[in-house]
Amino acid sequence: MTATSNRGLIFRGTGQVAVESINFPTLALGNRQCQHGVILKIITTNICGSDQHMVRGRTTAPEGMVLGHEITGEVIECGRDVEFVHVGDIVSVPFNVACGRCRNCRRGDTHICLNVNGDRPGGAYGYVDMGGWVGGQAEYVMVPYADFQLLVFPDKDQAMEKILDLTMLSDIFPTGFHGCVTAGVQQGSTVYIAGAGPVGLAAAASAQLLGAACVIVGDMVPDRLKQAKGFGCETIDLRQDATMPELIESVLGVPEVDAAVDAVGFEANCHGHNHEQEAPATVLNAAMEIVQPGGRIGIPGLYVTEDPGASTEEARDGNLSMKFGLGWAKAISFHTGQTPVMRYHRQLMQAILYDKVQIGKAVNVTPISLDEAPKGYEEFDGGVAKKFVIDPHGVLGK
Amino acid sequence: MTATSNRGLIFRGTGQVAVESINFPTLALGNRQCQHGVILKIITTNICGSDQHMVRGRTTAPEGMVLGHEITGEVIECGRDVEFVHVGDIVSVPFNVACGRCRNCRRGDTHICLNVNGDRPGGAYGYVDMGGWVGGQAEYVMVPYADFQLLVFPDKDQAMEKILDLTMLSDIFPTGFHGCVTAGVQQGSTVYIAGAGPVGLAAAASAQLLGAACVIVGDMVPDRLKQAKGFGCETIDLRQDATMPELIESVLGVPEVDAAVDAVGFEANCHGHNHEQEAPATVLNAAMEIVQPGGRIGIPGLYVTEDPGASTEEARDGNLSMKFGLGWAKAISFHTGQTPVMRYHRQLMQAILYDKVQIGKAVNVTPISLDEAPKGYEEFDGGVAKKFVIDPHGVLGK
Amino acid sequence: MTATSNRGLIFRGTGQVAVESINFPTLALGNRQCQHGVILKIITTNICGSDQHMVRGRTTAPEGMVLGHEITGEVIECGRDVEFVHVGDIVSVPFNVACGRCRNCRRGDTHICLNVNGDRPGGAYGYVDMGGWVGGQAEYVMVPYADFQLLVFPDKDQAMEKILDLTMLSDIFPTGFHGCVTAGVQQGSTVYIAGAGPVGLAAAASAQLLGAACVIVGDMVPDRLKQAKGFGCETIDLRQDATMPELIESVLGVPEVDAAVDAVGFEANCHGHNHEQEAPATVLNAAMEIVQPGGRIGIPGLYVTEDPGASTEEARDGNLSMKFGLGWAKAISFHTGQTPVMRYHRQLMQAILYDKVQIGKAVNVTPISLDEAPKGYEEFDGGVAKKFVIDPHGVLGK
Amino acid sequence: MTATSNRGLIFRGTGQVAVESINFPTLALGNRQCQHGVILKIITTNICGSDQHMVRGRTTAPEGMVLGHEITGEVIECGRDVEFVHVGDIVSVPFNVACGRCRNCRRGDTHICLNVNGDRPGGAYGYVDMGGWVGGQAEYVMVPYADFQLLVFPDKDQAMEKILDLTMLSDIFPTGFHGCVTAGVQQGSTVYIAGAGPVGLAAAASAQLLGAACVIVGDMVPDRLKQAKGFGCETIDLRQDATMPELIESVLGVPEVDAAVDAVGFEANCHGHNHEQEAPATVLNAAMEIVQPGGRIGIPGLYVTEDPGASTEEARDGNLSMKFGLGWAKAISFHTGQTPVMRYHRQLMQAILYDKVQIGKAVNVTPISLDEAPKGYEEFDGGVAKKFVIDPHGVLGK
Repeated sequence: MTATSNRGLIFRGTGQVAVESINFPTLALGNRQCQHGVILKIITTNICGSDQHMVRGRTTAPEGMVLGHEITGEVIECGRDVEFVHVGDIVSVPFNVACGRCRNCRRGDTHICLNVNGDRPGGAYGYVDMGGWVGGQAEYVMVPYADFQLLVFPDKDQAMEKILDLTMLSDIFPTGFHGCVTAGVQQGSTVYIAGAGPVGLAAAASAQLLGAACVIVGDMVPDRLKQAKGFGCETIDLRQDATMPELIESVLGVPEVDAAVDAVGFEANCHGHNHEQEAPATVLNAAMEIVQPGGRIGIPGLYVTEDPGASTEEARDGNLSMKFGLGWAKAISFHTGQTPVMRYHRQLMQAILYDKVQIGKAVNVTPISLDEAPKGYEEFDGGVAKKFVIDPHGVLGK
Repeated sequence: MTATSNRGLIFRGTGQVAVESINFPTLALGNRQCQHGVILKIITTNICGSDQHMVRGRTTAPEGMVLGHEITGEVIECGRDVEFVHVGDIVSVPFNVACGRCRNCRRGDTHICLNVNGDRPGGAYGYVDMGGWVGGQAEYVMVPYADFQLLVFPDKDQAMEKILDLTMLSDIFPTGFHGCVTAGVQQGSTVYIAGAGPVGLAAAASAQLLGAACVIVGDMVPDRLKQAKGFGCETIDLRQDATMPELIESVLGVPEVDAAVDAVGFEANCHGHNHEQEAPATVLNAAMEIVQPGGRIGIPGLYVTEDPGASTEEARDGNLSMKFGLGWAKAISFHTGQTPVMRYHRQLMQAILYDKVQIGKAVNVTPISLDEAPKGYEEFDGGVAKKFVIDPHGVLGK
Repeated sequence: MTATSNRGLIFRGTGQVAVESINFPTLALGNRQCQHGVILKIITTNICGSDQHMVRGRTTAPEGMVLGHEITGEVIECGRDVEFVHVGDIVSVPFNVACGRCRNCRRGDTHICLNVNGDRPGGAYGYVDMGGWVGGQAEYVMVPYADFQLLVFPDKDQAMEKILDLTMLSDIFPTGFHGCVTAGVQQGSTVYIAGAGPVGLAAAASAQLLGAACVIVGDMVPDRLKQAKGFGCETIDLRQDATMPELIESVLGVPEVDAAVDAVGFEANCHGHNHEQEAPATVLNAAMEIVQPGGRIGIPGLYVTEDPGASTEEARDGNLSMKFGLGWAKAISFHTGQTPVMRYHRQLMQAILYDKVQIGKAVNVTPISLDEAPKGYEEFDGGVAKKFVIDPHGVLGK
Repeated sequence: MTATSNRGLIFRGTGQVAVESINFPTLALGNRQCQHGVILKIITTNICGSDQHMVRGRTTAPEGMVLGHEITGEVIECGRDVEFVHVGDIVSVPFNVACGRCRNCRRGDTHICLNVNGDRPGGAYGYVDMGGWVGGQAEYVMVPYADFQLLVFPDKDQAMEKILDLTMLSDIFPTGFHGCVTAGVQQGSTVYIAGAGPVGLAAAASAQLLGAACVIVGDMVPDRLKQAKGFGCETIDLRQDATMPELIESVLGVPEVDAAVDAVGFEANCHGHNHEQEAPATVLNAAMEIVQPGGRIGIPGLYVTEDPGASTEEARDGNLSMKFGLGWAKAISFHTGQTPVMRYHRQLMQAILYDKVQIGKAVNVTPISLDEAPKGYEEFDGGVAKKFVIDPHGVLGK
């Protein structure tokens, strides 16, 4: 291996990202040796809505971070402790960094690994408070605990053919799927998905894969709703002056759904005509209103412990004013947190490889070069109905 | 059957209950025929903490209601449609009224039956907004859908011997157990139970039956903590000026538990030195702080949709200011709602009959006559560490 | 209601069935009053593979029985205890008779109801040893415990439009689905279905609805394999001289599947060139060979306690010579028994009504008149790739 | 570390074991480097019933093998890739060897690891066909994949105090517990455990920890039954001339149990007066007879793919003549295979450390020196009600 230069996308303060030269990765994180890791030449690396939270200044992310946690690549170097992953393998990297050795990883809870982040359970690449692992919106990246974490695609040619679907395995496909699973989506269910951003659309495609009878997606951006309709979802435009039960009834004939997924999180706006106003609990409260008694709400949408950009002091401290009494009266359960990607990525890969799901099409996958990434951030922030996939080495031939 | 007189405990406005003559039950609820029902001569009927919410004026309960939803009795008359329950059977009545025929009952969700309450899913005896079923703190009561709902004790003599344990099967033993089950309590778990009232103590006994390694009960009432210690729980006094993690660490050596149960609900007070102040989300926030990442919070404690007695407008509308961002960061799930008693009462009966649990002793069961019931309400409201069991026919020979 | 005549299909000894006049149903079974029941005018009633076991003389079924347990109809009379089902409703009848009141029904195990069969747990219509309930290959039938058991279709016109799909909800669609669920079929799974009769095809369609990556169906009848291929299954012809792992590898590239379903049962024949020879354990042994370690085998195919037509004494007593040591070494689990239809029929109805599954097409639904039923039995016994649906009142207008 | 000599127990042919000098372990298995491994100084190492199958000649185990897979020890050397286990730690070794990196380990199925045995999924120390890992009835042993596999006890002094309980975490306590979990044992269940050898007794203690109402243990050896009775089990002597349902009814008043565990396996003898005769399916058939309809049978007892010592040719090939039709009619499920120890060992350790279970006492733990081990094998083979624990360094001071 002779590559030694590297370039990546850097967070340069609120609203600012730039492509710059960065260090070529080594098998270490600071003083921590990572001979269990590999170096990847990145094939695809996606821009995520949770990157936007940082760039919008809604987190305490420090300037200078290399961003990017949705990574697919080719192994170009293996640490000496790596036994089962090989140079040349094309692999999907779960966005959660996980050791595979702690109490939580042993039981499959790789989203709250105890050994990869000194500050709290759970790690991620290129993300605030997630352990300092260097991000992967870059040409090369180091991935630790490779034998445990990596999903190796069975055939390289097939992988490259389906790479724009497979690239969704690192985060949003499993994240949308986990939202549905925790919401209790079953074959024949009616499902409400709040939010038609990439995670919402991935949740909608997941609900279809799970055999849902009817998937309803709500948003306020017409293009995103159109995207949802494009692969068979019903849609509701939340800018309308109508209650949530009325909107659901207009689709289903009854004012309730079997399961609900919150794919929006804390940066939610009010429904209805005053939808310009931020209201962090509005999605959760709406979900409680329309989910069936005894229902479950899957919450892949991010809620933060601190929100420096919030409009109220309560919200700045991570407090939400929830209609919890309504939830209790309906015996609802609430399922939060990051997604343990490894719990799902293998089976979802199989669904892709056997053509049972068109996840790239569902989220409107849009390849761009690394140099176009800052523009991608900007457009995505503006609400375009696209999932940007960075192709840092120009191998996709778009 | 010749009995025709009946007496019961009536809610007479905030802070007021009285024993009065009431109608002898018939196999009907207003115009609704209940030939699927039975008339019970009540053997025991317990005073519940949720009765207190009504009597304290924290609900919209109307004056004149007969209270009481924890009922054990002898069948003295069967409706013509009853096939499998017989006159003379001694039975436990689940506090949830449930038809056994709707979509929810068919899947075991008897706490949200669709056919017993015109206002919302789920019914109960003698309870506000729960369908108008006449309460059972009385001499006689009608129980509908008897074949489906009733748990028949296998032997009458054995049942009378253990009646002060078996009487807990109608509500608080299953409710505490459900809190533990939904919290994910396992064999070997460390568990925190918030609240040492009867439901909290029943949850603690349930955690022990489930094989928990260490059960920690928190409360502010010394007598209730003493009661918990009396059957092998660890206790923490929440009046102390210490953080929740510190309090847990003082018991376990680590500042976290595997599972947490909220057996308090919306009438919670602040922890620490200012514990006189009501703070409806304080128990939930504390549970989030100390439960392990990936943990579950079981919430048998009641949260209401409206609270006329709340100190803030937010709370009056059933809004709670929760540290939801903390919960999300730790990937916690929240499990709310009434308990589907029928899911558990048979197995818990077996545990009682085979002497695997001393639930009556755990909650300090205290028999009283029907005439003593108003005094029981008063004492219970004062925080005594007792579970009052009314013996309306004086058969317990206390 | 003025109808008083009735005709039904009668078992007249090995290989013999006939359409004859039978009694018009009453709300009773012998001396047992069934005021909880309804009388149905039958819209569709299907011929099942398990009916064939009886007609072939492989059970101890008595002559004179009215056959038929796959029933869909219109309610024309309700017993006095029926509250929630109404005259005019179009309903699917679960083939299991179940009271909704016993310990097993309360927990959803309606396939082993304790109150509907004096001989053993579990009842069915028109079936040997299943409680004596009169079969429904007829014009009219009585269904007990109607409020509990019946699935009411939400809209009559819609129901009649999709009746040839909905008629599969009484048995084979839930049965195939249960086979897949108990086999652990997941989104992305590879699945082997042994047998391409109606239950096997329903299992294959169910696996697809569950999001399986690849569904492989094995049989020895070319027409049945063609039928499976027709809706997207892979197929293997078991008459070939090849081992099961070889056959699976020829499809998947690996010699194992994630999950396996036995939709054949005890009347199995040997694989390979000597496939004329009956070998009751051959399907189970094959499934053990090819299912992944840790896998599960779902076994909707029927195994009997006594088989008067068996070729060995062992088999006549219901003994099977199984490679159980192989199963143990691979840590396999085996899931047997009738399907609790009610656990699944509502969700599968939704999947049909929202066009997520074409179950009628998958099993090649073929309507016939009641008078054609004996011919249907004969053809079906000959192995045609058809699911015969009797239309006793000529309402389908085929 | 200066120790360089080692001694271990060697299989020397049917009926023969001997303590001999063996190689001091290195961080390798043949040519396979194991820098992820550690060297343990063994504190305790137990004789297991499955060792007996080999010594009795009922397997194809080769002469010269070092036996022993139940290992507890102190870490004296760590491979360079070990990060989280440290020299001086006292640890329990799961008997399954598992890599923590393959598809099966990632989902918690460490009993069928794909990377530790060239011949089939799943590895073990000192066991035929289990990958060639050197056994641990010795002074020292190498354990690979230490970070993933080892359970580190939190406190050394506490660990040494309870070492005779903790030593059961390597195999039989999790194995008995897994038997109960897979059998569906719940709080309040009635349970039948077939076999009062160490695994049966561990299953019985597990059922108690799970809150079972009544645990019934069946065996033919009076001393073993006495041992079971000693910690609160009911017992039945299988030498009696009575049917299984009669025997169960004599204890419970009903002829069935909620759950059944087969802790015997293929070396089973007939029940009743002709109990000297081997009958490999007898335990499974008995379990089917007495378990409730819809019940589950947990099968930790070993069944083999080949049995050179079997009395019939069928059995020599691992075929069992099972009353599978009876199982199907009762809708029973069967759960086989080795136990994934890591799924349970941490929680069971907690139950031991908090004194919720006395597993050592339940199995009559009996410490012996390494030199006494051959005698221990002999006595154990004779049916004594003892669990022999070898103390190779004489640290227990018995």
